[in-house]
Amino acid sequence: MTDISAYSIEELNTLSEKIREKILTTVSQNGGHLSSTMGAVDLIVAMHKVFDVKKDPFIFDVSHQAYAHKLLTDRWDRFDTLRQFGGLSGYTKPSESPYDYYVAGHSSTSISLAVGAAKAIALKKEERIPVAFIGDGSMSAGMVYEALNELGDRKYPVVIILNDNEMSIAKPIGAISKLLSQTMAGSFYQKFKGKVEKVLDHFPDGAAYMAKRFEESFKLITPGILFEEMGIEYIGPVDGHDIETLIETMEVAKAFGKPVIIHAQTTKGKGYEIAEGTKEHWHGVGAFDLKTGESAKKSGSKSATAIFSETLLAFADEDEKVVGVTAAMPSGTGMNVVMEKYPERFWDVAIAEQHAVTSMGPLAKEGFKPFCTIYSTFLQRGYDQVIHDIALMDLGVAFALDRAGIVGEDGETHQGAFDISYLRAIPNMTLLAPYNETTMRLAMAFAKEYEHPCAFRYPRGAFIAEDCSAPAFERGKANLLQEGEEDILFIGYGNGVGRAQKTAELMEREPAILDLRFVKPLDEAMLEKLAQNYKKWFVFSDSAKQGGVGSAILELLSQKGMLDITLTSFEYDDAFITHGNTKLVEESLGLLPEQLAKKINEKLEDRN
Amino acid sequence: MTDISAYSIEELNTLSEKIREKILTTVSQNGGHLSSTMGAVDLIVAMHKVFDVKKDPFIFDVSHQAYAHKLLTDRWDRFDTLRQFGGLSGYTKPSESPYDYYVAGHSSTSISLAVGAAKAIALKKEERIPVAFIGDGSMSAGMVYEALNELGDRKYPVVIILNDNEMSIAKPIGAISKLLSQTMAGSFYQKFKGKVEKVLDHFPDGAAYMAKRFEESFKLITPGILFEEMGIEYIGPVDGHDIETLIETMEVAKAFGKPVIIHAQTTKGKGYEIAEGTKEHWHGVGAFDLKTGESAKKSGSKSATAIFSETLLAFADEDEKVVGVTAAMPSGTGMNVVMEKYPERFWDVAIAEQHAVTSMGPLAKEGFKPFCTIYSTFLQRGYDQVIHDIALMDLGVAFALDRAGIVGEDGETHQGAFDISYLRAIPNMTLLAPYNETTMRLAMAFAKEYEHPCAFRYPRGAFIAEDCSAPAFERGKANLLQEGEEDILFIGYGNGVGRAQKTAELMEREPAILDLRFVKPLDEAMLEKLAQNYKKWFVFSDSAKQGGVGSAILELLSQKGMLDITLTSFEYDDAFITHGNTKLVEESLGLLPEQLAKKINEKLEDRN
Repeated sequence: MTDISAYSIEELNTLSEKIREKILTTVSQNGGHLSSTMGAVDLIVAMHKVFDVKKDPFIFDVSHQAYAHKLLTDRWDRFDTLRQFGGLSGYTKPSESPYDYYVAGHSSTSISLAVGAAKAIALKKEERIPVAFIGDGSMSAGMVYEALNELGDRKYPVVIILNDNEMSIAKPIGAISKLLSQTMAGSFYQKFKGKVEKVLDHFPDGAAYMAKRFEESFKLITPGILFEEMGIEYIGPVDGHDIETLIETMEVAKAFGKPVIIHAQTTKGKGYEIAEGTKEHWHGVGAFDLKTGESAKKSGSKSATAIFSETLLAFADEDEKVVGVTAAMPSGTGMNVVMEKYPERFWDVAIAEQHAVTSMGPLAKEGFKPFCTIYSTFLQRGYDQVIHDIALMDLGVAFALDRAGIVGEDGETHQGAFDISYLRAIPNMTLLAPYNETTMRLAMAFAKEYEHPCAFRYPRGAFIAEDCSAPAFERGKANLLQEGEEDILFIGYGNGVGRAQKTAELMEREPAILDLRFVKPLDEAMLEKLAQNYKKWFVFSDSAKQGGVGSAILELLSQKGMLDITLTSFEYDDAFITHGNTKLVEESLGLLPEQLAKKINEKLEDRN
Repeated sequence: MTDISAYSIEELNTLSEKIREKILTTVSQNGGHLSSTMGAVDLIVAMHKVFDVKKDPFIFDVSHQAYAHKLLTDRWDRFDTLRQFGGLSGYTKPSESPYDYYVAGHSSTSISLAVGAAKAIALKKEERIPVAFIGDGSMSAGMVYEALNELGDRKYPVVIILNDNEMSIAKPIGAISKLLSQTMAGSFYQKFKGKVEKVLDHFPDGAAYMAKRFEESFKLITPGILFEEMGIEYIGPVDGHDIETLIETMEVAKAFGKPVIIHAQTTKGKGYEIAEGTKEHWHGVGAFDLKTGESAKKSGSKSATAIFSETLLAFADEDEKVVGVTAAMPSGTGMNVVMEKYPERFWDVAIAEQHAVTSMGPLAKEGFKPFCTIYSTFLQRGYDQVIHDIALMDLGVAFALDRAGIVGEDGETHQGAFDISYLRAIPNMTLLAPYNETTMRLAMAFAKEYEHPCAFRYPRGAFIAEDCSAPAFERGKANLLQEGEEDILFIGYGNGVGRAQKTAELMEREPAILDLRFVKPLDEAMLEKLAQNYKKWFVFSDSAKQGGVGSAILELLSQKGMLDITLTSFEYDDAFITHGNTKLVEESLGLLPEQLAKKINEKLEDRN
């Protein structure tokens, strides 16, 4: 590991430059997070200089900012494998390096983790200091506040480094964000501070008390007030690219012995002119040309997200009751287009999934049609709210679950595997899924008209299946795409339909193919009818096996006493799924059509 | 409905007294929430005087504070049915009254709901004002902050009434709580304000700007600073029992046209001397004697919570690595006893389930054994954290899920129905359940030693089953309690074992009874062996059917090709479950042993 403890400031600056170059080169080839991680380099270099990564827990929030940390901890030579299958993860990962204290792909966990680490350190009576490194975009989520609330009360010695690039992923939203940008007023006031203290002498009594309180009152005009009111010491704002100052500041914070936040202002994309200061576009990128900044490859088929975006815009055009929310993912979800045209009806509430979900309830109650658009993996953050604030009220909120299934390079923290399992248990909930462009539009048309809670899921990128005509969605009705030559039935759900079709093409004997459409409620009549002719069922769905689509069908078979059916589910086995190119990941799971066809043939032979 | 718009202050005070009497009488007979709801009466009377419940959304947070609202809106005569089966809910419930805008049993949703309502009202261009009524105990949850963050930014006209009885359910925890109690400093400062403004004249330049900023700086010393910094106007603190002042204050707030919070200080238990000012004991109570305050009935068997509490204390005594967390339920979970003895190892983090879960991760990583003790229904609030911060790291946090199954009078918002479904899909997770006192201790002993994530669930109140000796828990091993005379197998999980036993006692033919112990992983060898002799399986578990215990077993049967087994699950059907005495609720669901025995006999006859 690079030992930088003896480096001069000049050497550290040179190191920063070198790290930035390395990141830029690698991300331009592999894709990845760029602007936030480039902006964080100097901070991380200073952090490694002041704190001891061998003992102090370095806790990176949504750790895609932590590339510099990876480069400083024995991963320079492997860095070209970043985000590739079998290569380095794009996030911190303890199984990859002992210097990665914790996993973090979802945002806003770092302060809770630091509090937990501080408790452990206190009990062990050790001399270690947890350092939480958090971006301003992560500050909007409720769990940050929950953690600060305990930290400010119990006063554990935790250092929080706030990397404030004033941008988060998208446009910064919310009061907190505004507060952080009050720096000007702050520095204006610092100048007057001395004067004011003199004026205090005019008070005939209580002057000492007043002076103390008065000094405190000046904290108001810096962005630190929120933290200080919560019992956290505040230092800043400081220049997040001035390594010398950063080191001095961190040394002070390290010696505090109580919770302290260092507010550092950085430039997103620092060191790459084209990305510098730009916003969402350069947050997470695919491979690109270093000189022009142009994307290396254009995607082929239209993405499910793009179809969602177009369709939602058309809905919004034709019906003013259509509204929607995103939690800091306007462009990721394609809601940006609709927000631009109808800013009064489509809201970005920042990273705040709980609030996003619950705030849509009253809109549905008041006669609007909310599309609550959240990635499958992030809706886990709003699970109780789906149950308690939407389903229990039986309100017509439509949950649009983007990134359902394997998401590729982001990997295990982001896979959209669990939504069917966790949503299927909820009463009043209807679950459906499209499998190509036309069915996406039809599923959304169903969701738009449906007056109870429903959720539809769709993959990252393009659907597997080609487009084709299809009948409208009717609640609980499946669509038989083709009859089979023998007694084999392929049941596809969502993107699983395309997987079933591609697999069927490789089979000698043509199976029947059912587009299940609804996993809740199931099309009982259709399944009972198919059970008469087809006895060997195979389920295709990009979701966890436990409690998933196969499980739902087994529940029905059991309930109806249809015991002569054998069912094989090609959903995900019970393990977290690694990162990498989606096709490679699927291959590792045996989910490519040729692999599936082989397995099915073997199974059929076994049985015959 | 009582129209109080023309009432004089004196009449309103008399009405408040009458309401308090009614609440006291009813709760002493039926049990229910007492101290918080008594303290809120004057505030709610004023709210009904100033706002129009026919059009303004009245949104009560954890709505057990809202009994006065129920009494003012056509439910006086039915109030003696409070919390009884078929009677009034203990929470607001739109299906019960058009004046209940929203359901709320879980805390901290009101501001999100008010923001949603405000958005709808703005779009409809109506003249209505959402009023969120929230207790100080609810202020610790992250979703409050997420909602304030958007509200302070977008400035919807929402009135927030903060009912501050300085107690929440248990001891108030956290920095926010301390902030709210800074009133003294606040009033001290108000007196100096005039003087300070005069002093400002001494500044030679920038005086006007300074004056404005200076005045703002005074907000620091009131509890309102946090809200004002987030962009919410703050009025207070005001006396929450002075109806005249409350009406004046609410009139001002109503006219503001932007978000405003009224900070009202109230006395918990107001009007019932015995409860007044006391804390957790009088929060939610069973029936009691009005004159003495003594509980009307002593419970018979030891509750599962009590066994948990005793066992955890013993663990803590013998092993200093045992730590734990509760989210504002120290007495409800029985962790209070352990917290008192070991305050440095057992933490109450206030209503903050996300932080509670995540903060335990590093403790496990650092070699401690955390018991994360959260009711089944409330762990829904920490779902993503269980997945992303515990299971993905494969850390040995033990989740103790109290209140699993039907919880009785609290009803549909609190039923512990979904935990198996939502946890079973999570990789690295082990799920187990005890069914009586001895197995509870054994399950906990397993959890204590197990070095990966696990969750064990247990019911509110006493287990159904009598105590008996039992072998130690071994991961994935079931325990066959009795062989059967014929081919009938009862599979019980958790409290379902007792239900299976009671049902078996009513059967003519003795079934085999299996204590499943682990729903994840299942005891495959045992189930395969039993499948040879027993072909008719019946599953007993207090959990949702979708993705539940029966579903897990069906997945195994399918995977192993054991197709000659018929399985009937007596888990909960797909509907939210109402409130009332647990036995009556179970009867309504057909879950009493005599009902189950009858169903089983019918099923067996059908098949023979």
